[in-house]
Amino acid sequence: MTERVLTGITTTGTPHLGNYVGAIRPAIAASREPGVESFFFLADYHALIKCDDPARIERSRLEIAATWLAAGLDTERVTFYRQSDIPETPELTWLLTCVCAKGLMNRAHAYKAATDVNAAAGEDLDAGVTMGLFSYPILMAADILLFNAHRVPVGRDQVQHIEMARDMGQRFNHLFGQGRELFVLPRAEIEEEVATLPGLDGRKMSKSYDNTIPLFGGGAKGLKEAVARIVTDSRLPGEPKDPEGAALVTVHDAFATPEQRSAFHADLRAGLGWGEAKQRLVNLLEGQIAPMRERYVELMAHPERIEEVLQHGAAKARRVATPFLAELRAAVGLRPMLAVPRAAPVAAGPADKAALPLFKQYREADGRFFFKLVDTHGHTLLQSLGLPDGREAGGWVKRLKTEAAAALAEAPIDWAASGERGAAEAALAALAAAQD
Amino acid sequence: MTERVLTGITTTGTPHLGNYVGAIRPAIAASREPGVESFFFLADYHALIKCDDPARIERSRLEIAATWLAAGLDTERVTFYRQSDIPETPELTWLLTCVCAKGLMNRAHAYKAATDVNAAAGEDLDAGVTMGLFSYPILMAADILLFNAHRVPVGRDQVQHIEMARDMGQRFNHLFGQGRELFVLPRAEIEEEVATLPGLDGRKMSKSYDNTIPLFGGGAKGLKEAVARIVTDSRLPGEPKDPEGAALVTVHDAFATPEQRSAFHADLRAGLGWGEAKQRLVNLLEGQIAPMRERYVELMAHPERIEEVLQHGAAKARRVATPFLAELRAAVGLRPMLAVPRAAPVAAGPADKAALPLFKQYREADGRFFFKLVDTHGHTLLQSLGLPDGREAGGWVKRLKTEAAAALAEAPIDWAASGERGAAEAALAALAAAQD
Repeated sequence: MTERVLTGITTTGTPHLGNYVGAIRPAIAASREPGVESFFFLADYHALIKCDDPARIERSRLEIAATWLAAGLDTERVTFYRQSDIPETPELTWLLTCVCAKGLMNRAHAYKAATDVNAAAGEDLDAGVTMGLFSYPILMAADILLFNAHRVPVGRDQVQHIEMARDMGQRFNHLFGQGRELFVLPRAEIEEEVATLPGLDGRKMSKSYDNTIPLFGGGAKGLKEAVARIVTDSRLPGEPKDPEGAALVTVHDAFATPEQRSAFHADLRAGLGWGEAKQRLVNLLEGQIAPMRERYVELMAHPERIEEVLQHGAAKARRVATPFLAELRAAVGLRPMLAVPRAAPVAAGPADKAALPLFKQYREADGRFFFKLVDTHGHTLLQSLGLPDGREAGGWVKRLKTEAAAALAEAPIDWAASGERGAAEAALAALAAAQD
Repeated sequence: MTERVLTGITTTGTPHLGNYVGAIRPAIAASREPGVESFFFLADYHALIKCDDPARIERSRLEIAATWLAAGLDTERVTFYRQSDIPETPELTWLLTCVCAKGLMNRAHAYKAATDVNAAAGEDLDAGVTMGLFSYPILMAADILLFNAHRVPVGRDQVQHIEMARDMGQRFNHLFGQGRELFVLPRAEIEEEVATLPGLDGRKMSKSYDNTIPLFGGGAKGLKEAVARIVTDSRLPGEPKDPEGAALVTVHDAFATPEQRSAFHADLRAGLGWGEAKQRLVNLLEGQIAPMRERYVELMAHPERIEEVLQHGAAKARRVATPFLAELRAAVGLRPMLAVPRAAPVAAGPADKAALPLFKQYREADGRFFFKLVDTHGHTLLQSLGLPDGREAGGWVKRLKTEAAAALAEAPIDWAASGERGAAEAALAALAAAQD
């Protein structure tokens, strides 16, 4: 079976060599595997959460699109699009917003981290927290569910978001699927063995440490200069060197064939000088990066070509998204007005009879018993809590029918899921009166 | 100057005579005033928050659209559309979500009411609260701001939402307007003197009290039967009756000309029997409602005609919304890739120099002084709290530059608005090193 794999690409910052080895190269390789249908998208709606600098949003998005294309993403094979070209995404976000419990968002790691910082600083817990930060797991769920992705490759820190997408998908299926699984429930594919490159100083390559080797920035010269600054030990040419653990060697090996690796290691042990070793690394990197860099420079000089690729990708993505959203809209009741509805209100009886509310009893999948009072429009006036015993639920229905508001104070009612108390009291009074 | 007035129509329930007199009739009358450009929309995305019954969503929306059309809404003059036909609405909702402080939503009355109920019940505060309930003021802001409405007629309970829409619009203008007012800031038009009709029992006509007179439901027979059940005093025909405060008279007067009112009051004082008075009320109501009911029945039998009207309205609304959203997208940085960006990264200097972060000091409109540390990509690494004194801000910048992480513990930093502490420490270390 073909599996759909969805990869979101953050559109902030400029990719460095570590991003290429750790994320871009493996994702592109995975998209070439048989049995896989890959969706890649530039998450530019997400970028708005943290960035209110339009020029930076624009530039980053362009650089990152150019990088992925230059690195060999095959846009005939995969679907490569910009999130913000898919209007179905924010629309689905709203549909999911309506089924998403606020409690779920309260537990999101990113939000909790922000409130922890505020708590430590003695600030209001929500100081500086935007609704974008708070609710972005819903946008992310929409990204995933809209394309019915089976697998989402993510880092450990993102696993919770995939679980939240499953939660929302499941709830939507339950409420609106009428037995059908409208949404595929995605699973997180945890990238346990992400290749991390060491940076210039031997620590993990990261912008935070200011130790990165640029991928395309600075051109061949920039790459060479960066390699020259990789920290090595102080052994002189001719002295044997231990290849294990040397940052230079790790970077080399990430780009080398097994044969090249063995030869490099052997030569170092035999006394190859670090200067010459760096030159060999530059040659190796240039051999692979130069053709990509050339494509990158060409693309950056012609943003309109990237635009065209992305427009083509958006059209391809919307061939999936548009009909699927129409199906979801129909499921929740947002349907074109075509058929005559079943119960035209003009044909209904006089107002007094039509207005009599109704008690319903039912049992949930977890075995607990519930009752609710609904008016003739289907509004829930009263919703009970879950009860272990069906007779207990029946007893409460009987008491509410006869004692009306008097029984309401003691009854096990879930007021958050019920209507206004006044309406419920009026309905119970009407029921009691009708029984007299 | 033409003022834009936007009216949202709740699409749940079936309108009764009180809704007609209190909301539908005056809104339609107002839309005929000169100098007014009216937008009316069926708020069906909002309906999803409280209703997970698709058939009811569908039916209510149809009944309510038919009611407004039957009541004389002139769709050539006004723009009448379904919220869910405007994909720009959920998209703008996301843009506003990114500028909306979570604290603002925490203070929304509807949300606070739900948490109060939970608190009283000893429940988790957010029990049963969906993200739809929590964040719908953002959707409402998008409804309003998308059409740059000047005025929004609302009840007192909705005033807070209009203020929130102003808040979001103002913040968006400030962040992205570059001096321009992208959004008109709407004002609430409070309907102080809403005509409320008494119901059958003399209390305010409301579904909650089960005392409504149907507008179209039940046909002429239903209307007549409802009027027959209006409570009166027990004075017999021939006895003088006081028209003041009698529910029957109030309903009558809401539909009568001044001459008809005087005559009716005089006749009651002269001993007109309640039975005959009721017949006169039925005749008065039928004279006005029968032609509307006929249109209503016709429309309900042909939902496809309503659909056509709404599609026409959506096209009219989108002639405003689509170009405006394109402008807003450009303002936040979601622009087509056409021009070559100013700073192509390939042309940038080597990584070491390019990566040096920068302190910036500035003063906000409120007079307070701030500083921040940004990296070369424009990311904010550190954001200060507001300080009363500019020299104090300068002093902190000097200390952070020289003492680096050591000064960080004491510095007045707004961590919620800053990046990760590790990144800030690394940047400060890099700065300090560069100064050595």
